[in-house]
Amino acid sequence: MSNGGRDLSKVWTAGLAVIGDEILSGRTQDKNIAQVATWLNAQGIRLAEVRVVPDVEARIVEAVDALRHRYDYCFTTGGIGPTHDDITVDAIAKALGVPVVIHPAARAILEGYYENRGGLNEGRLRMARVPEGAELIENQMSGAPGIQIGNLFLMAGVPHITAGMLDALTGKLEGGRPLVSVTVGAFAPESEVADMLRMAEQAADGISIGSYPFFKEGRVGSNFVVRSEDADRAQAVADSLADQLADLGYEPVAGGI
Amino acid sequence: MSNGGRDLSKVWTAGLAVIGDEILSGRTQDKNIAQVATWLNAQGIRLAEVRVVPDVEARIVEAVDALRHRYDYCFTTGGIGPTHDDITVDAIAKALGVPVVIHPAARAILEGYYENRGGLNEGRLRMARVPEGAELIENQMSGAPGIQIGNLFLMAGVPHITAGMLDALTGKLEGGRPLVSVTVGAFAPESEVADMLRMAEQAADGISIGSYPFFKEGRVGSNFVVRSEDADRAQAVADSLADQLADLGYEPVAGGI
Repeated sequence: MSNGGRDLSKVWTAGLAVIGDEILSGRTQDKNIAQVATWLNAQGIRLAEVRVVPDVEARIVEAVDALRHRYDYCFTTGGIGPTHDDITVDAIAKALGVPVVIHPAARAILEGYYENRGGLNEGRLRMARVPEGAELIENQMSGAPGIQIGNLFLMAGVPHITAGMLDALTGKLEGGRPLVSVTVGAFAPESEVADMLRMAEQAADGISIGSYPFFKEGRVGSNFVVRSEDADRAQAVADSLADQLADLGYEPVAGGI
Repeated sequence: MSNGGRDLSKVWTAGLAVIGDEILSGRTQDKNIAQVATWLNAQGIRLAEVRVVPDVEARIVEAVDALRHRYDYCFTTGGIGPTHDDITVDAIAKALGVPVVIHPAARAILEGYYENRGGLNEGRLRMARVPEGAELIENQMSGAPGIQIGNLFLMAGVPHITAGMLDALTGKLEGGRPLVSVTVGAFAPESEVADMLRMAEQAADGISIGSYPFFKEGRVGSNFVVRSEDADRAQAVADSLADQLADLGYEPVAGGI
């Protein structure tokens, strides 16, 4: 793992593979994309692409191979539990061309965790399996650790367990500048101010402006999100945008909705 | 568009491209994956893959090209609004090698919708732009329609507008058998019953069993989701699983959590 330094000369990127039939069936509403994205940004790393794939080895291998070569980091969520449908470790080992081994420290963690919970059985021991050469990521919520190997980070599928693993990784990855977002909210239909937004974006180097409509109490409004690596510039563009909207008579919504 | 018939001899599939910087930045929690997945399944179509990509033309083209060739249908959400960051139509036209044109019926819809809302301006007219040869998908919530061309379906990014567009498409796409899911819930740690689950899946043709832990009031439990195109078989396997869990003394949770 790197030392969590900042290399401000480049834009650091990550891909995310969300693994699980339950997401693709619609049974489970994914929450990991947003939380991984938010956490990555705080590390100075941009989430550049997500792929959601089923619990099928070849499909996991394909997605992970695409993402790990293309971006600085590749995260996965899901498929590292104790049951037969948890096949992420096998898929990653296949992608990397290494065998699956029992990690001694993971085994010790699980032995301790399950000591008063019925002991280690075959299913539970599955959670000590890692691609050879892997390190562990602390699981602050339950026993089974996450897994890091090369630029790959294998996280749990259950969001609060993933959150704990992200917390354990905070400050440990090399990154650059976080992207700063400043939101300007107003009861302005975006279709009325599209030209103004376009001109504001074109006039300022190194900023982008996203426009997201909202509907509140029967009224139409928009959140205009100014993004830049330069916090001062983002704020200045946002302030100018807010002034222009006020001049046009649109009611502001502080901080957006 | 097809006649909404059922061809039960094949598994119909779809890919989904979620387009938008706001998803990749973590600002917006995606809700379209789950709702598109659920709707597709009711049409007898399986969501097989999702890619989330930024508001960058080349990245949209790449994702859509991969998905439209690989699956029977390709849906997109996001990027069909009136502002400069809405570039899905241009990207799709580029992917298909056709020009972008103003669709006369879309223009008429927008003229009507905005008649008492300030009239049609340049930004609003953007929402009448379609890849040449496209048909419209009714927008039951606001003016601007969705777009269908070939096996591509371009939907809004705002979830309730997407929902209305899906509703307008209900029954109109050719599909096969929906996948039936039966959930068996119990206060059983999945790691204690992993072997049983594996054997249950192996013993029954044409079914899969997913295992998803939950945590409620300090207790650990699991939802075991039995999936099959054959509703009777799914129910029989679920009933058998519930009996085995009860025999082992695990407290049931009717319908899961």
